[in-house]
Amino acid sequence: MLLGIQTLTAQKDYKLWLQYNKVTNSKILNEYQSAIKGIHAFGKSETIAIANKELQQGLSGLLGHEINSSTNENTTNTLVLGTVNQLSTVLQQNTKKETASINNEGFVIKTIQSGNKKQILITAKTDTGVLYGVFHFLKLLQTNQSIENLAITDSPRINIRMLNHWDNLDRTVERGYAGFSLWNWQKLPEFIDQRYIDYARANASIGINGTVINNVNANALILTPQYLEKVEALAKVFRPYGIKVYLTARFSAPIEIGKLKTADPYDVEVQKWWKDKAAEIYARIPDFGGFLVKANSEGQPGPQNYGRNHVDGANMLADAVAPFGGIVMWRAFVYSEHDADDRAKQAYSEFVPYDGKFRDNVIVQVKNGAIDFQPREPFHPMFGAMPKTPLMMEFQVTQEYLGFSTHLVYLPKLYQEVLESDTYSKGKGSTVAKIIDGSLDNHKITGIAGVANIGNDLNWTGHPFAQANWYGFGRLAWNPYEDSKTIAEDWLRMTFSNEEKFIKPVKEMMLESREAVVNYMTPLGLHHIMDTGHHYGPGPWVSNLSRPEWNPTYYHKADKNGIGFDRSSTGSNATAQYAPEVAKMFDNTATCPEKDLLWFHHLSWDYKLKNGETLWNSLALKYQEGVNQVAAMNTTWNTMGNYVDEVPFKEVQMLLNIQHKEAKWWRDACLLYFQQYSGKELPKGVEKPTQTLSYFKSLKFPFAPGN
Amino acid sequence: MLLGIQTLTAQKDYKLWLQYNKVTNSKILNEYQSAIKGIHAFGKSETIAIANKELQQGLSGLLGHEINSSTNENTTNTLVLGTVNQLSTVLQQNTKKETASINNEGFVIKTIQSGNKKQILITAKTDTGVLYGVFHFLKLLQTNQSIENLAITDSPRINIRMLNHWDNLDRTVERGYAGFSLWNWQKLPEFIDQRYIDYARANASIGINGTVINNVNANALILTPQYLEKVEALAKVFRPYGIKVYLTARFSAPIEIGKLKTADPYDVEVQKWWKDKAAEIYARIPDFGGFLVKANSEGQPGPQNYGRNHVDGANMLADAVAPFGGIVMWRAFVYSEHDADDRAKQAYSEFVPYDGKFRDNVIVQVKNGAIDFQPREPFHPMFGAMPKTPLMMEFQVTQEYLGFSTHLVYLPKLYQEVLESDTYSKGKGSTVAKIIDGSLDNHKITGIAGVANIGNDLNWTGHPFAQANWYGFGRLAWNPYEDSKTIAEDWLRMTFSNEEKFIKPVKEMMLESREAVVNYMTPLGLHHIMDTGHHYGPGPWVSNLSRPEWNPTYYHKADKNGIGFDRSSTGSNATAQYAPEVAKMFDNTATCPEKDLLWFHHLSWDYKLKNGETLWNSLALKYQEGVNQVAAMNTTWNTMGNYVDEVPFKEVQMLLNIQHKEAKWWRDACLLYFQQYSGKELPKGVEKPTQTLSYFKSLKFPFAPGN
Repeated sequence: MLLGIQTLTAQKDYKLWLQYNKVTNSKILNEYQSAIKGIHAFGKSETIAIANKELQQGLSGLLGHEINSSTNENTTNTLVLGTVNQLSTVLQQNTKKETASINNEGFVIKTIQSGNKKQILITAKTDTGVLYGVFHFLKLLQTNQSIENLAITDSPRINIRMLNHWDNLDRTVERGYAGFSLWNWQKLPEFIDQRYIDYARANASIGINGTVINNVNANALILTPQYLEKVEALAKVFRPYGIKVYLTARFSAPIEIGKLKTADPYDVEVQKWWKDKAAEIYARIPDFGGFLVKANSEGQPGPQNYGRNHVDGANMLADAVAPFGGIVMWRAFVYSEHDADDRAKQAYSEFVPYDGKFRDNVIVQVKNGAIDFQPREPFHPMFGAMPKTPLMMEFQVTQEYLGFSTHLVYLPKLYQEVLESDTYSKGKGSTVAKIIDGSLDNHKITGIAGVANIGNDLNWTGHPFAQANWYGFGRLAWNPYEDSKTIAEDWLRMTFSNEEKFIKPVKEMMLESREAVVNYMTPLGLHHIMDTGHHYGPGPWVSNLSRPEWNPTYYHKADKNGIGFDRSSTGSNATAQYAPEVAKMFDNTATCPEKDLLWFHHLSWDYKLKNGETLWNSLALKYQEGVNQVAAMNTTWNTMGNYVDEVPFKEVQMLLNIQHKEAKWWRDACLLYFQQYSGKELPKGVEKPTQTLSYFKSLKFPFAPGN
Repeated sequence: MLLGIQTLTAQKDYKLWLQYNKVTNSKILNEYQSAIKGIHAFGKSETIAIANKELQQGLSGLLGHEINSSTNENTTNTLVLGTVNQLSTVLQQNTKKETASINNEGFVIKTIQSGNKKQILITAKTDTGVLYGVFHFLKLLQTNQSIENLAITDSPRINIRMLNHWDNLDRTVERGYAGFSLWNWQKLPEFIDQRYIDYARANASIGINGTVINNVNANALILTPQYLEKVEALAKVFRPYGIKVYLTARFSAPIEIGKLKTADPYDVEVQKWWKDKAAEIYARIPDFGGFLVKANSEGQPGPQNYGRNHVDGANMLADAVAPFGGIVMWRAFVYSEHDADDRAKQAYSEFVPYDGKFRDNVIVQVKNGAIDFQPREPFHPMFGAMPKTPLMMEFQVTQEYLGFSTHLVYLPKLYQEVLESDTYSKGKGSTVAKIIDGSLDNHKITGIAGVANIGNDLNWTGHPFAQANWYGFGRLAWNPYEDSKTIAEDWLRMTFSNEEKFIKPVKEMMLESREAVVNYMTPLGLHHIMDTGHHYGPGPWVSNLSRPEWNPTYYHKADKNGIGFDRSSTGSNATAQYAPEVAKMFDNTATCPEKDLLWFHHLSWDYKLKNGETLWNSLALKYQEGVNQVAAMNTTWNTMGNYVDEVPFKEVQMLLNIQHKEAKWWRDACLLYFQQYSGKELPKGVEKPTQTLSYFKSLKFPFAPGN
């Protein structure tokens, strides 16, 4: 047994994927040690100092001895870093082609040989680009890649790569499962918690360049001087890490904190109030990013309160921040209790007519699916439907509907599925990725947001593997075409071990985990059958909520005749919101992917799936498959004790045990409930339920987090 | 600059006072290395394994090389540990006298020389005693004391040494300023957070042996099977560390979760319900400690709701837990809005008549002062007034009224002042310490509770120096006669450095810090003039609360004639609640200590203090002195950068800056307010206020923590 592991490891988790343990492969270590004898940094900005310190810290750990950070720039085997315009003329010439090919946040990592002198150069057009290059270089070493002859150029494909924190001013976090908010408002602005710095560092390491620090269900107080002073302090911490601060704007703020009688966007005083407010914010935070707005959605105030529309609201705010280079991210997550139409259709119906009517500095933020961050949803029909408007992706990193921070679910697999989806908006190959990176419709402002899974838990994310979702979101924000497999492997190597015997099975486990959660929660296109309010555990029976579209029964529509939501042309016709090629595919049960079947179709319990089994049997077997997959995850992990420190090993073990138990709970509760309608026996291979339906219905979770 | 300090140190704080850095003094290191070559543990219990691991970990760190933990018991320079009955006969004989002198939780640390063989023995009557001995031994090394010829016997003076966590089931912490509750109810019982283990370890290291894990403003749900299963899991973690779990009992639980129509303690069904509940709890947790109850206090339900009294309520619960060896801690923190009498008198008036009427397994828990955890209060008059009833001390470790976790206030100095106070209940020398350790009145059950300042902040307590308050509370709980100076010095050495140039000034700073906070908040016996609700910052003007005794104006009674609460025989006559010697002293302005003057007397602004200054001038100068003291703390700390790691150094620096700013805020706000009544100029030496009174009155703290 290792000494002192108990306290040391809790601390190790805190370092996330930025573990800089000495390289264990001696051949590789040797290569690294020979190639890197010192560091020379051109430039003296705070960002360059941070990059330099990171290299020193990282290399000293990885190479096992201290690396001098002020080596002569001409010494061989020196790692040289700096922005292009700070480099020596020789180095500038040497990388002219590469630097011409990168954008403002991109970087070049290049081995430069001249005579007997061999150096590795990390350069970029901006300080932040250099910092990104440094983290990329360290990743090469952390993942044991060769650094013999480097010629890397890389640039982010999306401009705004951001986290959305649904953090309230009382430090509770809506849908937060990793403790509470990082932001200690009481001690700000004077007290800078080390967490803020470490948060910025972790984000910079994966290229995240923006953060909305407060909840979309906003409190106007954040816009008062008392809080802006605190926001300013955070912005100052994040700035050298290339991260801009954004805030959510409560639409009724002019009334609540401005003492106006209205928040009507047509009111001149209201317009002036927001212009003054923007000026006040920019006076404090010159690089303030802008506003994120949830308006006329789930009870939040908005322009419709005054008979105006989303364009009116968004453009008013956009005009206020435009003089300072700010943007407005206007959320499209709207559905109304007064609209009897299929909830899945409402955002499209409401927003698509506005295409082209928003100001240039407005971007519309759209969730990946038309309902709400389910284990699986078809891509949102708005993607591809508003070519004249930049659309920003909103993914959820926190696992509101996917087992909180208790279940191991590797989300980049989900993100990839969405990003790869073909909208056919400009013919085949019009993927969601191409829409959000602006390449399909030539947008200048592009963005992607992840609803953060970060809290003040020691390990930041609650579940050790949830760190991979933060990491993976950042990687896909940088490059939405990357394979989630590569990302999983990098994360495992950086976080735990480079041993193949560990990487291979655990990577497989991660990659399968998303399909597992779909199977044991919502197979075959089922959705939103989680228990009410907290969304933890199954609640397909819930039917008594005030708004019909909040009830699970609204979504599964199980009855004696079958199950599923008919969104085809015979039903709500939501399929018609997609491009004709896609609409046709979803509309027809023969071509609709089985994974989305019950999302689009209400089918008889006896409907035959491609494998020849009835829908009922297939559904039951899918639930069982989900349970089996989690059992297999347990089995895999239990053999990994040699590759992982004791504390995270045990933590994951305990969590996988809970996940296994809860996968069974999902299976049993859902099948017992649906069985009332199907009236059929469980097929062979599906285990008998461990409890009765009434037992499952009786379960209550009075203080479930995030609710 | 040290490498990588930024992430490493945030983690260092997490280790609290259990830092095991290599001893830097080479002479001392040499002595230790020679004396300790290995460890031999007798016994195989979980507790002994923990003790053994702690020694291994501690010694390996302190001595700078790994220490073998399975050395032959007969080898020289081996550290031997085990309970008396596990030792070899020779060792038993050798320590017979010492072990006879200790109690069940005490320990013996003794150098045993026989021929050429020299060993250090750590033994005790119980496993927990051995664990305490191990931590004591490690402390000797951490504080660089000689281990040449050890002959230490030590036993705790108080039986129940506990923390009270005012933690709610939603993880908010009432009066908590170090983040949120450690207890992650959602993931319990299956997921054991490493924090739980580290919490138990830290407590064991200072002899804390009990914990009430939920708020005294209780939620009955904690007593349902759903939560008891989780409590059971925590109890299992804490058990090998010698820590018992206790719960708060909501008096109305039989109604709320038991579906009874009443919670009347005379009702047979109610009595049965509690008996059954106790049996249910003990079936899960055989060593469950018992219940802590806040009844008929600040709106909590209690026996008085049914026309019964505190004895009726406490005894009913006591009867329920008695068969299992449990106890009931019944809080005496009562005051009524319907009682026009001085709030300071009410607990005494209500409880003293019940002396001798409680069951043997009831202990009455009394706050240190008669109001509520003020920066300074005279000792509570109940101490000494109920000789037939064991009284338990309740100190507040969390700084509800003392600047949250933002102000550096070393509280053991406050605790010591209370413990040393002479009640004269059995003549001179009848100190509070002698009452609570049971020695004065021969009580078998004795106890002391500290309202915890622990949360899920990385460093546990928010302010790095607040760790000293947790530590110091534990030390005084073990030995209420210990000098807070010694404790401060030990803590500094264990946590930061053994350098004299660091220890001396920083110890002075700590020891002065409590008087500083009294001076800048509530000098000369003022009290409870904090702002409403959250209790952060000054609010002497607040007079509009529904209950008169919640208003600061109730306490300071400033008017044109003077200031102070007349509790003398000409006023509320609270002085009469003390023993005659004490009553006489407090009653007379000539003998009343000036530090308590305005607690007991309403005096003219022109009243002359012993120094010849008027009361007004003295008050103003005291406020200024507090500010000056904090300025001096800043000056001292600013020169300590060489002895402390970068992160805690900066953290304390930032916090002391805030404290200095807020000390001025207190001074200015209070003096401007009181000046309205005194009508006098500020004396020479008192700085001019930086803002107006109306500015100070306008300050609002909408999401102050802990409220």
